[in-house]
Order: sequence, then C-alpha cells, then structure tokens
Amino acid sequence: MSHIESVQKWLASNNYQVGYISDPKNIQYFTGFSSDPVERVLALLVFPDKDPFLFAPALEVEAIKDTGWTYPVYGYLDHEKPFAIIADKIRARINNPDKWAIEKGNLNVIRYETLKKLFPEAQFDGNLTPFIQNEQLIKTSAEIEKLEVAGKWADFAFKVGFDALRKSRTEQDIVAEIEYALKKKGITHTSFDTIVQSGTNAAEPHGFPKTDKIKENALVLFDLGVIYQGYISDASRTVAFGKIDEKAQDIYKVCLEAQLTAQAAAKPGIIAEDLDSIARDIITKAGYGDYFIHRLGHGMGQSEHEFPSIMKGNKMELQPGMCFSIEPGIYIPGVAGVRIEDCVHITDNGCLPFTHTPKELQIIPVR
Amino acid sequence: MSHIESVQKWLASNNYQVGYISDPKNIQYFTGFSSDPVERVLALLVFPDKDPFLFAPALEVEAIKDTGWTYPVYGYLDHEKPFAIIADKIRARINNPDKWAIEKGNLNVIRYETLKKLFPEAQFDGNLTPFIQNEQLIKTSAEIEKLEVAGKWADFAFKVGFDALRKSRTEQDIVAEIEYALKKKGITHTSFDTIVQSGTNAAEPHGFPKTDKIKENALVLFDLGVIYQGYISDASRTVAFGKIDEKAQDIYKVCLEAQLTAQAAAKPGIIAEDLDSIARDIITKAGYGDYFIHRLGHGMGQSEHEFPSIMKGNKMELQPGMCFSIEPGIYIPGVAGVRIEDCVHITDNGCLPFTHTPKELQIIPVR
Repeated sequence: MSHIESVQKWLASNNYQVGYISDPKNIQYFTGFSSDPVERVLALLVFPDKDPFLFAPALEVEAIKDTGWTYPVYGYLDHEKPFAIIADKIRARINNPDKWAIEKGNLNVIRYETLKKLFPEAQFDGNLTPFIQNEQLIKTSAEIEKLEVAGKWADFAFKVGFDALRKSRTEQDIVAEIEYALKKKGITHTSFDTIVQSGTNAAEPHGFPKTDKIKENALVLFDLGVIYQGYISDASRTVAFGKIDEKAQDIYKVCLEAQLTAQAAAKPGIIAEDLDSIARDIITKAGYGDYFIHRLGHGMGQSEHEFPSIMKGNKMELQPGMCFSIEPGIYIPGVAGVRIEDCVHITDNGCLPFTHTPKELQIIPVR
Repeated sequence: MSHIESVQKWLASNNYQVGYISDPKNIQYFTGFSSDPVERVLALLVFPDKDPFLFAPALEVEAIKDTGWTYPVYGYLDHEKPFAIIADKIRARINNPDKWAIEKGNLNVIRYETLKKLFPEAQFDGNLTPFIQNEQLIKTSAEIEKLEVAGKWADFAFKVGFDALRKSRTEQDIVAEIEYALKKKGITHTSFDTIVQSGTNAAEPHGFPKTDKIKENALVLFDLGVIYQGYISDASRTVAFGKIDEKAQDIYKVCLEAQLTAQAAAKPGIIAEDLDSIARDIITKAGYGDYFIHRLGHGMGQSEHEFPSIMKGNKMELQPGMCFSIEPGIYIPGVAGVRIEDCVHITDNGCLPFTHTPKELQIIPVR
C-alpha cells in the first residue's frame, strides 16, 4: 500500500471526506516533491475514494511534474486567491464535504479560519498530525538505507572537521571547511546548522559556533548531519584538542558511559522513558544530573523532529524500524560541554547506529 | 517607544488583556533573541500594563539572558507541559484573562486549541499578525544600515561567484565557493539557499543548483543573500558565460529594461501594483509576458517575506522606509532564464538599492 493509499484508508475508516495536508515535509513524504513554499500555499488534498491533488504556487508546477507526480496539480499566481481555487477544486469532486481532517500540528489559525469560512457547514475535527507521525514511526528498509548513507556523510564530515582543527582557526572556519567539503561532494544540504563549539562555548547546549579562535587544550564539540535523498543524519562527537584537565576527562568519561550503556540497552520492548533513565541515572550518580538538561533523544528520519521522543513521560515501547538519537550531554557553564550522539535504528534484537566515528576520546594534537 | 511598548499600546487600545507572540522571527524582532525552537515551544507574552515575559525551552534560557533581555524568562524541560506553565504564569499576572490576541499567521491549530482548553471562557479573536506586519513595514535608519551591510556582502558573494566560474565546475561547486568565502569572512548564514543555475536550468524559477557542469556559452543566474545582525540581503544577477545567442541577449535586454524602469519609478506615492505593472508591461510588450510568472517583488527586512508585496491587487501606497525587491524574471522552458534583482528602500524622493553589482550584461570568458 502506498503512503497515499494509507491516508485514503484512514480517512475512509474515520468517515472523513477530505484530508488537507500542509506540512511541506509531509507533502514530500507523500509525493516525493520537496519545497519550502514559505508564505505561499502548498497543499496536498486527499479523499477516501477519489484521486488526490496537489495545489502549489505556479512557480512550482513544472518541478512537481518532473518528480513523477501523476495525479492533478493546480498552480496559482501570486495575485490569485489560493483558498478559493482549492475550494473550487474540492467541490468539483465532492458536492458538500462536511467532515475534514487537517494537520493540526502544522496548519496556522488564519488558514484554518479561511477554510472554515469557505466551508461554513463543515466540521474540522479530524487531526492528521498523529496519524502521519505514526505512519512515519517505523522506517522501511529503503528508508533505513538512505539514513545509512546520510550517516556515512556525517562520518565524512567529522573526519574533515577533526583534520581541520588548527589553533589559528575559528569555530566558524571549521564549519566552513566541513560544509565546503560536503558541497564539493554534491551533498547540498546539512540537516541543521553545523555546530563546532570549543571550551566553555560548548557548555551552551543550544549555542552556536563563534568567530573566536578554537581553544587549545580544551574539548571541542561537533554536532552535524546532512540530508541525503530527503533523509537526514545527526551525530555529535566531542574531541580533545590538546591536553584536557581531569574535570573535562571525567565529564567525558561519564557522558560516554551513559551513551554506550543506553545504546547497548536499546532494543525492541524497552520503554522510551526507561532508556532515558538508563543514561540519566549514570550521569546523575556521577554528580552531573543538573547539567543534563535535555531529553536523551529524538526520533528522526526526514527530519530530526519525529517520533519516538526518548524522554521521561513517553511510555512508547520501542519496535524494530524506529529511528532516534541517543545523545546524553553534560554542560557545565564556564567549564566545558560534552555531547556524544549516534542515531540508531531498532533491529530485531538490539539497535544499529547510522554513524561509526569512534566514540572513545580522540586526542588531536595542538597544531 | 520600544517595539514592546507598541504592542502594549495596541493591546490596550483594542482591549486585549494578553498578546501571545509565537513566530520566532517576530520574537527576535521584539526581544533581540534569535532561535529556531522547531517543535519546542517559544513564546513572548505581552500585557497592556504589566511586564512581558518570554517562555522558552530550558536549553535556551542562558542564551536569552545573554542577549540582554531584562524581563522574566521561564524555561521548561522536555518532559514538562509547556502550556500548563504558560497558563500559570499568565494567571499569576491576570486573574481571568478573557480577551486574547494571537499571531493567527503563525500559531498552529493544535496549540490554539490547547490555549482554548486552558482558558475556556476566553475569546481569541485578536490577530497580532497584521499589526506586526504593519509595525515592520517602515524600516528605521538603524535597520536600513544593517540592510546596507547585508547588501555589501551580497555584492561580495557575486564577485566570488563570477570569479569562480569555470567550465570544469558544477553549479554546486560555485555555490560551495561562495558560501565558503562568506563563512571565512564570518558571515554565518545565507538568507536562503544560494542559487546558481546555468543554461536551461535557469528557466526553472524555483529550481536549484545541480551537480551538472556549468554550461558554456549560456546565461548563468545567481540569486543569493546573507543575514547580517538579523537583517537580510537578497539579489539576483544573470551573467553570460561565454557567447550567448541572440534570443538570450534579447531576453536579458528586456528583463534589464523592466528592472531599471521599475527601479527608477519606485518612489513615495506610487501604488505597489502599479510598480508591478510598469515592469510587466515592458516584458509583455516584448512578447515574454507568459514567461514572467511571479510578482515583481516582495517586502524584506528580517526575512524576504515581509510587506509590501509588489503585485497585482496590492493597492498599498509606497512610503519612505519601505524595503522590497524589484526582480523581474523571464523563464523560457528549454531555452534560458533571466532574473535581475535589487532590493531597495524608498527614500523621500525615490529609492536606493542595497546591492551595487553592475546590472549591464557581464560577459565572463569561458575558462
């Protein structure tokens, strides 16, 4: 059954007449067409027993046909009213569509109210967001192959980054070297802003690379990933650039133990929040619990924001094909920051990582 | 009056007790704090006569304090319920807030419904989106200075890109050279994916750079921009790489005339849609009207998606301080594509561009 057929079936079994999909990432998942329409309107309309259609800016129509989309696609020009056209195209298929499912996690209020005005009799209580999240939860082997290739490029990027470390360079310089090397290999997009943070800058878990020189005799944190055929990688490594003090060594050792222990424990049947606890308990017992201020991991696939979330409160049981990060971090303000991360997929009896760069502390001589 | 005070005044004069701002770009505008929280919750709460507060992932709290935000900031951990905390913090300030304004152009339906459940007596009919768009419509001289610096970096990027043209390189290679040079200069973000398209690939107005070799004796289209202190540049140039045929020369000549004529006509008092017509009429009279399939321009500032939109149907009168693109394009499938674009700001008696790379056709010898 194709992805679209799954939506049709779900709509039918829940008695919805129209499904309105608006998240560009999900439109890519269902159609293969990738685009960031920003403020313009891009929508995939699905019906239980009629052909779906895509609605897009006129600019995009040729590109959509090139992707092999065989159902209708309708374009609109900038000065036209997109929702009036969508309403006409829907009414040409269904006389009075009064039961809708929308992506409540994506559609904004103004567009929701516009649809409600155009279909004043309709109910919009169906929510496609959890259905789609669930559809994307278990990756197929074809998806896992793409994630593996994306992971190999992350390993390549780590190697470029470690090799590029120089005391004369800034954190941003290292980012420039990594992204240049990737682009020259035809990898056009990173999955997020490449992170290189050294010394105390690494203690900001959502900080960013600075134009300060790389700190010598300090830990340097790399967090990076690429997009390969619509699927991402995401991995973190922390290396020593020169000699690091005992405190930094201890933080690293604890974080590594938490990461390895959790990764060894990840297998079918374990509960997501229990996996978080396995890593967190190690860090807490070592006295660093207050410095691990994020969940252990996030689901991933087409983006780093899928399910399952590996955190307290998530009672989901892990199953083969689920893909997520295992990324404990210890961030001590003014001292140092460490994060070690692999993304993995659950197999029949354990898990396999998408990245293979060694996790034992690598010491890069100052140069 | 500060940006926040403007919101407070607007809330008061419209009898709203709570203003909920959710768009990260707008939160940056009001607070100076820049972040992409993705699926996590980031919100700015504003009240007519009480201090505002920021609500953010715990990960971001230190970074927010570093930006100089002096009002309260509340963090939440991944396993906590963000909207329950927000509700408590609001109720600690206002007993029964029943009149709300939200950003309808940003807030998604699931979060909107969550707020409605937490405040079942409240009305959410206030819409901050048009108010904020209007606030951002006229740029201050401080903002224009940043846009000018961002424009200089776009000129730098064009020079790098033109110098990098080689028949042995791919379109992606040229992108890699441009972005590497920018990053090495400390410019960390482009405002969108840098575009280099040669030959027939340039005829896809929303296409992207390929890993094919740059076409010789063809037009090459560059569209690029950077972010400088939160403000963007956005400019397009099309150059000849070697000899181009008469058709390509003619398309270029027409597009240039449309661009220069519109830019010369942009001044206070002109209506946005009339400016679009000035460029469009030139292209239509030359027989290429069907190949100019987007509006003449978009407003810009912190992003390339602000007001005023320069298109048919927009009756807005241009005023000093408005900033927007003037970017006619002619895209003939299978033949060639040309776009020539400056972003400008309206002055007291005309307009000034942010980019200064020559627009007369530049011929780069094949090498």
